[in-house]
Amino acid sequence: MSNSFVHRRIAIFGSTGSIGTQALEVIAANPDKFSVEILTAQSNDELLVKQALKFQPNIVVIGDDRKYEAVKQALSHTHIKVFAGAKSLEEVASMDCYDMMLAAIVGFAGLRPVLCALDIGKPIALANKETLVVAGDIVMKKAVEKRVPIIPVDSEHSAIFQCLVGETRNKIEKVILTASGGPFLGRKPNYLVNVKRDHALQHPNWQMGAKITVDSATLMNKGLEMIEARWLFDLGPEQVQVIIHPQSIIHSMVQFDDGSIKAQLGLPDMKLPIQYALAFPQRIPNDFPRFNFKNPCQLTFEDPDTKTFRNLVLATEALYKGGNQPCVLNAANEIAVYAFLRNRIGFLDMTDLIERTLEHVPMIESPTLEEYFESDGEARNFAASLIKL
Amino acid sequence: MSNSFVHRRIAIFGSTGSIGTQALEVIAANPDKFSVEILTAQSNDELLVKQALKFQPNIVVIGDDRKYEAVKQALSHTHIKVFAGAKSLEEVASMDCYDMMLAAIVGFAGLRPVLCALDIGKPIALANKETLVVAGDIVMKKAVEKRVPIIPVDSEHSAIFQCLVGETRNKIEKVILTASGGPFLGRKPNYLVNVKRDHALQHPNWQMGAKITVDSATLMNKGLEMIEARWLFDLGPEQVQVIIHPQSIIHSMVQFDDGSIKAQLGLPDMKLPIQYALAFPQRIPNDFPRFNFKNPCQLTFEDPDTKTFRNLVLATEALYKGGNQPCVLNAANEIAVYAFLRNRIGFLDMTDLIERTLEHVPMIESPTLEEYFESDGEARNFAASLIKL
Repeated sequence: MSNSFVHRRIAIFGSTGSIGTQALEVIAANPDKFSVEILTAQSNDELLVKQALKFQPNIVVIGDDRKYEAVKQALSHTHIKVFAGAKSLEEVASMDCYDMMLAAIVGFAGLRPVLCALDIGKPIALANKETLVVAGDIVMKKAVEKRVPIIPVDSEHSAIFQCLVGETRNKIEKVILTASGGPFLGRKPNYLVNVKRDHALQHPNWQMGAKITVDSATLMNKGLEMIEARWLFDLGPEQVQVIIHPQSIIHSMVQFDDGSIKAQLGLPDMKLPIQYALAFPQRIPNDFPRFNFKNPCQLTFEDPDTKTFRNLVLATEALYKGGNQPCVLNAANEIAVYAFLRNRIGFLDMTDLIERTLEHVPMIESPTLEEYFESDGEARNFAASLIKL
Repeated sequence: MSNSFVHRRIAIFGSTGSIGTQALEVIAANPDKFSVEILTAQSNDELLVKQALKFQPNIVVIGDDRKYEAVKQALSHTHIKVFAGAKSLEEVASMDCYDMMLAAIVGFAGLRPVLCALDIGKPIALANKETLVVAGDIVMKKAVEKRVPIIPVDSEHSAIFQCLVGETRNKIEKVILTASGGPFLGRKPNYLVNVKRDHALQHPNWQMGAKITVDSATLMNKGLEMIEARWLFDLGPEQVQVIIHPQSIIHSMVQFDDGSIKAQLGLPDMKLPIQYALAFPQRIPNDFPRFNFKNPCQLTFEDPDTKTFRNLVLATEALYKGGNQPCVLNAANEIAVYAFLRNRIGFLDMTDLIERTLEHVPMIESPTLEEYFESDGEARNFAASLIKL
């Protein structure tokens, strides 16, 4: 078996976020394997410019039009082409100048660039779970049509993906997604009702962006991951199980139809799944800290408390119902988390807001892409209207 | 990927032992996938005949010459050919009439038939770890030369093997062999000195033959597995780690050079690794009981107590020294366990006997096959002489 690695030109969509910056660390550590072709950011122009100067991509995109001049100016002495606006994200994603897209834009906004990349046959390292939560049927169908691999970056899905290499002929009985339980594991509603932003942002194990950290605290993150897993691994809703594993050492598991379970383990460090996705199928030696089975060491597991963390129930229902329900769930959740992060609503209000939005937006069984966008918009508007009251 | 499975004619060497009988259960459950071509047993002629009548192999071999007539007589009304004696085992193993050998003979006696099977290019499902412990260099070299896969049946090595599928281009940093710790986990020498046969045969998790059950109680089993792993996966001695995991749910792990760890889990049930080896690379759906992460569930890990269970130290030293040392270790251990099972020596005496034998038999750096046999004989004679005193 050859160990030769063909150099990859990476397009990082969402380079200034947690995943984007860690991906750049991985790339910086492996200049023989990777170069940066495209960098995009929504609003953090200063960091985008700094990254561009260091990594010398051919193209940068700043999502926020108002920052175009500042970025253009800062990079005027370079060869780097600068674009701005959401439409540019799609245009740049459609350019046949890169080898792999790292889809690390947060939320629903990440969907369109991924579809553009798939259209031109570019492999996706997928950190944006909403892409699959919202329109998993359309995205996976396109990936299959174009024979493009989608390699997950989420640690849970990366774990499952790693357990599945070499097992393509074998049937999955179920996947077991592990969840840390977040900072409020074991807490009850009478505690959660008073939880504030800063407390919810203290994740016990993982360093992540604000949105996903709140989603971890509410368990919505695991709910979205269930839906993501369903599409990524072509499973039925009943084949996706969630279990609380507070130490976050086992990142997830696959049970095959002979009863054998495979798991992937390690310290909670997003750089490993990022590197794995960028270099797949080759692993790259590194000096990331290793997990050691200390003496003694305990890994514990328990069922999620779905009476307290009702987001998981809502997400499971959306998973089973299908259609536009996960899209609505996701949209309402984005509005809810946004409002919570701005101290506009309480921790438990987030669930109520999502539930009311799911009740409000009509079910569509097999939405078109446009209908997904419409459901998304409708859900956002309705959810936002609840906050204004 | 095709799901077609080419029917396999299995030769079970050691069919009346724990592995052999469970393998026959697997075969009986999958008559479309497997048939039995050869059955061999050392001394249990009654069970051998029963198995032969049920599975209708073309050949049976009874190791003990004195039982030849009984077997011959019992099968006289069938087409089944009957052979007897150790030499017949080799002759039958050399016959090009089967597709895969299940090497389930206990101890050193299993080595020669495996070498015969490799010589004619037959894949091996290897349950006999002594084959690799004693002469791993010669066996693996032959397997590579003949391009014959050796698929381990030991649950630990099966776990590692399963974790390695699809990872052939990726380097192993280390393997982590899990050990239940056996029935005397946490006990100290002042307790062990009084341990008797029947107590040592009560394994907390696994139902196994007597020899391996005692080896589990002394941790020699794990020591032999370290040596087996070294050969099977082409590792250096420093790449093999042992950790106590009393629940026997994680069957073993591989850490790759990117720091990612993969593990295989399940209930302690030898039928799974047996079935996996017989059908590799395809998994066969079954209704074996599944492991469930009960609520709550704990998996614990601790370092082995090498001050109490000194066999592990002796085995590790033999692993590092190489040459004929693992062969001597294994031979002395077989004599020691044999004597212990007959209440001739105490539990702790086993270690002393092995240690004295290792001190007595001269080191050979790169033994020939004949020298391995000589070292084996010398070690057995010396170890036995210590018991007679």
